[in-house]
Amino acid sequence: MLTKNSNSIAEGLKRLISDEQVLSSKEEITVYEQDATNSKISKKSPDAIVFPKTIVDVQTVLRYASKRNIPVVCRGAGTNLVGGCLTDFGGIVLNFSKMTRIYNLNETDMTVKVEAGVVLGDLLKETEKVGLFFPVDPSNMAVSTIGGAIAQSSGGAKTFKYGTIKDYILGLKVVTADGEIINTGSDTMKNSTGYHLEQLFVGSEGTLGVVVEATLKLIPKPQARRVIMAYFDYVSDAVNSVNEIIKAKLVPSAIEFMDKNSLISVENYNPNGLLTDKEAALIIETDGSDLDLQEEKIVSCLNSLNAVGIKIAKTEDEIENIWKSRRASFAAAAKIAPDVMTEDVIVPRSKLPDLVLGVREICEKYNLKVCMIGHVGDGNLHPQIVLNMEDDVQFKNYMSAKGEIYKLTNSLGGILSAEHGIGSDKSAYMYDVIDKNLLLYMKKMKNMFDPNNILNPGKVFIDK
Amino acid sequence: MLTKNSNSIAEGLKRLISDEQVLSSKEEITVYEQDATNSKISKKSPDAIVFPKTIVDVQTVLRYASKRNIPVVCRGAGTNLVGGCLTDFGGIVLNFSKMTRIYNLNETDMTVKVEAGVVLGDLLKETEKVGLFFPVDPSNMAVSTIGGAIAQSSGGAKTFKYGTIKDYILGLKVVTADGEIINTGSDTMKNSTGYHLEQLFVGSEGTLGVVVEATLKLIPKPQARRVIMAYFDYVSDAVNSVNEIIKAKLVPSAIEFMDKNSLISVENYNPNGLLTDKEAALIIETDGSDLDLQEEKIVSCLNSLNAVGIKIAKTEDEIENIWKSRRASFAAAAKIAPDVMTEDVIVPRSKLPDLVLGVREICEKYNLKVCMIGHVGDGNLHPQIVLNMEDDVQFKNYMSAKGEIYKLTNSLGGILSAEHGIGSDKSAYMYDVIDKNLLLYMKKMKNMFDPNNILNPGKVFIDK
Repeated sequence: MLTKNSNSIAEGLKRLISDEQVLSSKEEITVYEQDATNSKISKKSPDAIVFPKTIVDVQTVLRYASKRNIPVVCRGAGTNLVGGCLTDFGGIVLNFSKMTRIYNLNETDMTVKVEAGVVLGDLLKETEKVGLFFPVDPSNMAVSTIGGAIAQSSGGAKTFKYGTIKDYILGLKVVTADGEIINTGSDTMKNSTGYHLEQLFVGSEGTLGVVVEATLKLIPKPQARRVIMAYFDYVSDAVNSVNEIIKAKLVPSAIEFMDKNSLISVENYNPNGLLTDKEAALIIETDGSDLDLQEEKIVSCLNSLNAVGIKIAKTEDEIENIWKSRRASFAAAAKIAPDVMTEDVIVPRSKLPDLVLGVREICEKYNLKVCMIGHVGDGNLHPQIVLNMEDDVQFKNYMSAKGEIYKLTNSLGGILSAEHGIGSDKSAYMYDVIDKNLLLYMKKMKNMFDPNNILNPGKVFIDK
Repeated sequence: MLTKNSNSIAEGLKRLISDEQVLSSKEEITVYEQDATNSKISKKSPDAIVFPKTIVDVQTVLRYASKRNIPVVCRGAGTNLVGGCLTDFGGIVLNFSKMTRIYNLNETDMTVKVEAGVVLGDLLKETEKVGLFFPVDPSNMAVSTIGGAIAQSSGGAKTFKYGTIKDYILGLKVVTADGEIINTGSDTMKNSTGYHLEQLFVGSEGTLGVVVEATLKLIPKPQARRVIMAYFDYVSDAVNSVNEIIKAKLVPSAIEFMDKNSLISVENYNPNGLLTDKEAALIIETDGSDLDLQEEKIVSCLNSLNAVGIKIAKTEDEIENIWKSRRASFAAAAKIAPDVMTEDVIVPRSKLPDLVLGVREICEKYNLKVCMIGHVGDGNLHPQIVLNMEDDVQFKNYMSAKGEIYKLTNSLGGILSAEHGIGSDKSAYMYDVIDKNLLLYMKKMKNMFDPNNILNPGKVFIDK
């Protein structure tokens, strides 16, 4: 609920930044009480939404907020799945949709500078115009922003071959809690000149500083690509064929998994000829100049584990058609029940069969429906648990299952989050999985950068 | 000179760790007064050398040292080129040559765990046994260690395609200044579970904590490789053909440069048929399954810039024979004059012609001989200035040239060190090139991890 304080914060900001850059009416504010985290609403409404146009605007807001101890929460497209954009302590939302400059795109240097609000899909289009490529591709890249991707340490489907966003960050311009600018990193391919502070901000979820600009490393756009889709009668065969592909020393650009529930929900949502009577499917993308050779070897690995219905997409239309099904999995799951809780667990690849089967068992035990997709080439599984959170029994079962999934992941040598982050959704579980001293130093780090805890408070850690 | 204090430090350590793990005689100590940084000797002798066998040994030493404010300097093979292993404030040298365990090498996970003292060449051999590959390959990889590579944020010849060591660090086990253990990172391919503290220790030169163990990401060993060597009558043609290769969207595994002085010194040192009348040479390695295609395109780029004497190595013997010449450049330069000062500057690739020609001009102006080699695919140049540092005029000229080279690099958007680090050799220049606030936060970081400044004091920053 808006308080007098809210109005005074908005008024104060309007005196410093132009009126049209500050939203504060109840109707406008309501939109910002949620992000893509299902069923979560901020414990407190934001007091004002600010649309910075320049780095100076961001500094102005931070200086204002730090003097008054007002929380500041950054927001890109609001696609965060762990409550990262929620304003549980009220405060100011920095909406980066007006900071979308892409500049210094240099073909020879293979680098580009981007403001935090640049949409990943737009960045990809720009880089492809000069034959370059930025391989970080979360499913929601049509809307999600580079600032969010940096904050959550994003990966996507192509991590297996190309790594995650941290491997493409050369430098970050960061505004500190008190409004100062830190220019971290460099414009060069390598840098051994002091500490890699740019890497510290990657995945810090807006809790250490506000990333306003990034210098990114790009790579040449792969010459061509091909997608192989295959189905399996047993989940274990699907997962084990991933390991066969790896043992054969192949490096597909993506190795994605969908289980039966996911195939059914996607096919119901958007019919595309998926084989919904199969237990699992793999979607494997290869790129480069030796596609025939890669295809032959991959198909041989798949056949050795009884793959059926193998489909090979060679044209861009055919390829995008397969990816469309994979990318629709979240929206499709959302049609099944009011809520979809997407997990993001990861284990060493060799433990993947245990994770997939274990998660399924846990969900069965708690009578929960789960659609499983995942970047299985990386050992990363996204169980999408579909339920009605308003139903007390289902909610209680979900909370129990969630805890058991994390416990299982931990016991398999894995970790809570691969690419979605911790936010407020998983912060309570950090204490179970993170080394005690590591957590201590993470908190020291937080305290050093943000002693008054105004930057996205309540996220990553339960207490300060 | 050894003092009574030295003896008491060694005696104290011997009471905690077995006698044979502690060296303290004058003869033994002398060896550790230097590293590979030419002409530099520690301002103070180390008080004791300790050979830890276990992580507990390292903790014991750190606890002992932190209670008494004794400096601790880590040492792998002592190949550091920026005075990083020097004990300018005395203290304890931790020699990691007894911590060389390689374990949990897992073909499916494509990961391995290594202790800090593992030699990079040994690691490569072990990984290749199971068809895997660790692409960090500094020239001295036959002796240099993973601990040193992590400390200096090493790259090597293959960065252009494969990135630097930071891209292969999944987790680090670190002993803090006060002897506690921090387990950073994870055993998984991705991790978005709190801050990436593991990345903060990469390139921190032993000033934030002691890295005792690393979990590394590996990749499949490339199926085959080929090396193309080409000569040029103009340095600018050589450097510009690198840009042509990049514009053609080719991704060689290595693009290396040698100038005329370097060709001559290497050929004199170890005759190998190099064309010493040419101004420059490029060594380009390709790998993968489409070597014919890559070769054809690369040769076409080279020819478009008037390459001559193109030589293509296809067998492992032929390939290693070419690399032998490149790797000999440092040893060969050392035969020319008593001292070789190796610089490590890097600029955005498009500025490389300006850097190469500018460095040559600066050296000519100060009458200094320079052999230039570099990982030019990354924009990284290693000017090796050969001189006699005892000669006052030469020394003065060298110091002037050095400063001007850094100034030039900075003006071209580059940075002091790409992969060798700052150590004590470049710390005075940090203030000219690093953002003021970045430096402030680097120092805050140092102060947080090592409030009493016992970890490799005097390195990276001039003062604490």
